[in-house]
Amino acid sequence: MFDAAALTRDAFLGGRVQLWQPREGYRAATDPVLLAAACPAKEGQSVLELGCGVGTASLCLRARVPVGVTGVELQQDYAALARRNGLDEVICADIAAMPLELRQRSFDHVILNPPYYGPGTPARDVGRDTALREDTPLEAWIDSALRRAGPKGIVTVIHLGERLGALITLLNSRAGLLEVKPIAARAGRPAGRVILRLHKGRAARAVLYNPLILHAGEAHLRDGDDFTDAARAILRDAAPLEF
Amino acid sequence: MFDAAALTRDAFLGGRVQLWQPREGYRAATDPVLLAAACPAKEGQSVLELGCGVGTASLCLRARVPVGVTGVELQQDYAALARRNGLDEVICADIAAMPLELRQRSFDHVILNPPYYGPGTPARDVGRDTALREDTPLEAWIDSALRRAGPKGIVTVIHLGERLGALITLLNSRAGLLEVKPIAARAGRPAGRVILRLHKGRAARAVLYNPLILHAGEAHLRDGDDFTDAARAILRDAAPLEF
Repeated sequence: MFDAAALTRDAFLGGRVQLWQPREGYRAATDPVLLAAACPAKEGQSVLELGCGVGTASLCLRARVPVGVTGVELQQDYAALARRNGLDEVICADIAAMPLELRQRSFDHVILNPPYYGPGTPARDVGRDTALREDTPLEAWIDSALRRAGPKGIVTVIHLGERLGALITLLNSRAGLLEVKPIAARAGRPAGRVILRLHKGRAARAVLYNPLILHAGEAHLRDGDDFTDAARAILRDAAPLEF
Repeated sequence: MFDAAALTRDAFLGGRVQLWQPREGYRAATDPVLLAAACPAKEGQSVLELGCGVGTASLCLRARVPVGVTGVELQQDYAALARRNGLDEVICADIAAMPLELRQRSFDHVILNPPYYGPGTPARDVGRDTALREDTPLEAWIDSALRRAGPKGIVTVIHLGERLGALITLLNSRAGLLEVKPIAARAGRPAGRVILRLHKGRAARAVLYNPLILHAGEAHLRDGDDFTDAARAILRDAAPLEF
């Protein structure tokens, strides 16, 4: 468990969400907030978050839409924080070996923000390292997400733009409508992140949307945030991310 | 063979390329011109175009860079026009059953603009229908392109945005750098077309670039073209398509 002094209380969505995070471990930035904004959940639907950490994405989603959220998190101390932060149900389990009870359930939505960096990335903090490193291959994350989504379920994932090939190949193993939303730091730049939504049970085709641009201008020039209006609406005002 | 009266002489790249096309059959629009602009061929390199039709993409490419171009075309009358239009070498063959002589060769670049519509599309003109319909599955086109590109060869393909999932899954069967360039009719719209480049022999990762926008404004409001500056430079001034 984290010591009280090892925690910080941080605000998201302009203060609508406040949660405890480890001071030194994995700390949520914009990715889980964008993930929550991109999940098209409707009131009363069920949502599963794979690798929920302290619950940032799930709690941001629940701040926008009243949904029931279940989180799965490998690390016990992060799972405990997710509970403390108010997640409805948190299951401490390995994505690649989920308990039978969870494998028997399906959800309207599965959301995930899988670890980004390969085994070569140096570790400074064990918790942060586990949260970021791909000890569980991307294949296991996507496979697990597709299995836990119901017959008309929607899987929403945010990941590095450079993994687009692997992500689409893995998601494409299940027929459905595939939506691709590039997320670029600035106009004209390649997409550092990409959000993909796979709608099971819909005709197999892809839609490649125009990018969401996060920051205005060519480079960071002044103090404070330089978010575009679209990014600020999502990150500060809890607006949905319209594809 | 086409009757002389069945042909028109049309200009591309602001008049740099002039070629004969069937009046009623498949007629090149912007797609082959964008394909040519996206091929990063350098002087003296070898280029293979699969399904070259009357040679539009190859001839537009050769107008920008001095390269040797070989075209493969299933339909004899289109292949004959491609020769008449000045393609260096045109082989009349089925992509799915290429002659041994061609299967023994490899190229620095392979470019292709595979047919877009499924077998359900109604036929008005047999040649146009063959040029547009997917009697040869997309899989055979991509497989053939990957095989004919040398160990450091680059495959450049333009296709419907909605086929992004299939395209990436097929290209991803061969490790390499995958570049994705969305092409949108207007700002804010999903990509109607997408250009993909697979660089064989390079580290496997993807780059999802910002879209090329073809037309300025929200809708077509006036006579004449409403191309953006970037699109006009490519389509009228033979500029390369910078990703």
